Amino acid sequence: MSSFRFAVNVTPKPGILDPQGRAVEGSLGHLGIEGVSGVRVGRRVELTVEAAGAGEATAIVERLAQELFSNPLIEAFAVERLDAQGVTGSGR
Amino acid sequence: MSSFRFAVNVTPKPGILDPQGRAVEGSLGHLGIEGVSGVRVGRRVELTVEAAGAGEATAIVERLAQELFSNPLIEAFAVERLDAQGVTGSGR
Repeated sequence: MSSFRFAVNVTPKPGILDPQGRAVEGSLGHLGIEGVSGVRVGRRVELTVEAAGAGEATAIVERLAQELFSNPLIEAFAVERLDAQGVTGSGR
Repeated sequence: MSSFRFAVNVTPKPGILDPQGRAVEGSLGHLGIEGVSGVRVGRRVELTVEAAGAGEATAIVERLAQELFSNPLIEAFAVERLDAQGVTGSGR
């Protein structure tokens, strides 16, 4: 068994209303910042998985991302390996 | 002026209590999943910045990350360029 560290990035799907993103855009004027647009606010979950191999660990993380971390109706997720280079998988 | 797309990953600092992470770990038993640990739940903010260059755009994002997206007492952030390769900067 080995340990693998992942991050799951959960973001509102395109076209889905994002009230937190709108609130951030509304706050930018108070900070005197211009030229910022397209703000989307989501979640980031980091976790460690013990598994026989990277493929098995990734499968566990993708299941958690779908069933526990995201609402598939309105959110997209992407799975990222933190202890290796690059992104290993992504979801809808 | 060019457009640059960024993500800011905000996570609880090491040692800071993370009740959402604990809740996720408590839910894993119901899903029949073992071997998952070190769950940390944070935010991910994606945004587009118009600026003369990448350096100026990154400076704006780092300012927003410090003043608007994170609580520096209890959270760390990392800035990621989405329209280029790799991570361009990180914060505390």
